[in-house]
Amino acid sequence: MLEDKTPQRTSLSQLGEFGLITHLTKNFDIKQPSTIKSIGDDAAVLDFKDKKAVISTDLLIEGVHFDLSYMPLKHLGYKAVVVNISDICAMNAKPTQITVSVAVSNRFPLEALEELFEGIALAAKVYNVDVVGGDTTSSQKGLIISITAIGEATAEELVYRDGANKGDLLVVTGDLGSAYMGLQVLEREKQVFQVNPNNQPDLDAYTYIIERQLKPEARHDIKILLEKLEVKPTAMIDISDGLSSEVIHICKQSKVGCNLYEEKIPVDPEFISVCEEFNIDSTTVAINGGEDYELLFTIALEDYDKIKGNPNFTVIGHLTQESEGIHLITRANTKIPLKARGWDAMEV
Amino acid sequence: MLEDKTPQRTSLSQLGEFGLITHLTKNFDIKQPSTIKSIGDDAAVLDFKDKKAVISTDLLIEGVHFDLSYMPLKHLGYKAVVVNISDICAMNAKPTQITVSVAVSNRFPLEALEELFEGIALAAKVYNVDVVGGDTTSSQKGLIISITAIGEATAEELVYRDGANKGDLLVVTGDLGSAYMGLQVLEREKQVFQVNPNNQPDLDAYTYIIERQLKPEARHDIKILLEKLEVKPTAMIDISDGLSSEVIHICKQSKVGCNLYEEKIPVDPEFISVCEEFNIDSTTVAINGGEDYELLFTIALEDYDKIKGNPNFTVIGHLTQESEGIHLITRANTKIPLKARGWDAMEV
Repeated sequence: MLEDKTPQRTSLSQLGEFGLITHLTKNFDIKQPSTIKSIGDDAAVLDFKDKKAVISTDLLIEGVHFDLSYMPLKHLGYKAVVVNISDICAMNAKPTQITVSVAVSNRFPLEALEELFEGIALAAKVYNVDVVGGDTTSSQKGLIISITAIGEATAEELVYRDGANKGDLLVVTGDLGSAYMGLQVLEREKQVFQVNPNNQPDLDAYTYIIERQLKPEARHDIKILLEKLEVKPTAMIDISDGLSSEVIHICKQSKVGCNLYEEKIPVDPEFISVCEEFNIDSTTVAINGGEDYELLFTIALEDYDKIKGNPNFTVIGHLTQESEGIHLITRANTKIPLKARGWDAMEV
Repeated sequence: MLEDKTPQRTSLSQLGEFGLITHLTKNFDIKQPSTIKSIGDDAAVLDFKDKKAVISTDLLIEGVHFDLSYMPLKHLGYKAVVVNISDICAMNAKPTQITVSVAVSNRFPLEALEELFEGIALAAKVYNVDVVGGDTTSSQKGLIISITAIGEATAEELVYRDGANKGDLLVVTGDLGSAYMGLQVLEREKQVFQVNPNNQPDLDAYTYIIERQLKPEARHDIKILLEKLEVKPTAMIDISDGLSSEVIHICKQSKVGCNLYEEKIPVDPEFISVCEEFNIDSTTVAINGGEDYELLFTIALEDYDKIKGNPNFTVIGHLTQESEGIHLITRANTKIPLKARGWDAMEV
């Protein structure tokens, strides 16, 4: 038998908005006891009892935040959820619910939206959050995704950006810079493809960094891990814009200075070799590249022994008094002021 | 002294994202005791104690949901908040917080965004809600606004769409159809303006219907009013897509039928005269025109005396058993099936 190579395409206008959201969310289970009412009324209803509710929202625009020419829709749906879950994790809270609004131009068939929602559903499953609301609408151009995430925590559990103290240690989870280099590889392949569409890219040497870009994970394991270790961070933030930008956020809001050590910044071997291939300084990328969604936090010095040697954590600096400023101490032991160049502004 | 007619324009790139959100939200006060942490961390923190949290989200796209050629930005900001507050009111909950995300193309100067946020701030003040989060980003085309509203209510206060019973009365607040006719007048003036830009429109005869379109209000007064009257609705929804569509939502979800009486539908005299001017059937508009943001609810028959004669409420029908279907009883006493044509699909 011959395989039908023509994928099925359903026009969105065949469904209409009410049909569409019901269709796209029909497989979304409700698992959280705090979800009292989900999609299907004017608003979702959440029950937080004596917990605090934590809420975070993000708007993702095609051509600004993502490029569909190398971002599969399922991955995009997954990542859109992860980005918001990561914000909840950065409060040391437990993600519990999300709402999802999507706007699409009529160039998208139903199957495209289904793929997107498959990714959303997968992320909801992996992170054990309920999809409790949202809407679908049309856009004049491209795909627009708006996600709001809700989480819960007790007052004692919550960690803000402004609680760091002089003498605290600066700690980061995982490794940095790979998501940015993954994007560079994908951009290069896109250009190759535009010149020769028949060229099949061999991306085996870039598996890790591409996965870091296309399918990042939020560190929802860290809250549980730190609880087991009996460590409560004094301040915490997730690394979405880049390490330097996030260090500055914590320092400014906590009114402290910081010495960040270049040699301590954790990076992956694949990341290093790709930086060499691209002839880019790896420290510049590790400090300024965004979208790694690792957590950056500060702990009291006396908690150091509790995290020492744990492969999830790397101490990368320590906090000083505010007047000393925010500096990077290079491998050559020179002290240079840290600047927030962030994701868009990076020149490499 | 001569007035400077050149409005000041600040390019958004002069500020950058962090500066921008701080700048735009610096006048947003925190008034709700349940707001523990607002803008400035990874997520907002809300404290709901023994109340239920209610959450609703909406995505508004230029060219789809609004037209800036006749919608002043301040009104747009106000309306974007009202639309979400209205969803919270439709749960019989008290709106408490909102988050606001905005994406704009670089054709918008800072002053445009400031106007938009002035409207958002005004609505937040009028409805006594805190703006607790959000972000600003760039778009490839036009203005995109995503708002999430949060409210609170006790379990006993909450009213869903699925609680209506056979024999209940169908009640609506305010009057219907005016927002739609306001839009028709604005569309006509836009076309006149395109032909002759020097023509100054005289809109005095359309004050009410234009205000209903450009500056709608959410009925946050109804929860308080019904409490005073000791009436708890059995089901409730807000009228955003049009009366027929909302009646069908309540009936389908409550598994009941309905007889809706044409002669009972409340309309404004200005609305009637504009329908005559446009040669449009006023009942068609009152039933299918959206964006009035009035509340539609059902009450038990024995509560009728409590609302009788109250100028805020009009009884427009009664619920039957599901098998009898959903019908409009015309002035000529003919019974025709009610169809959800909604806002976009209306042919007038």
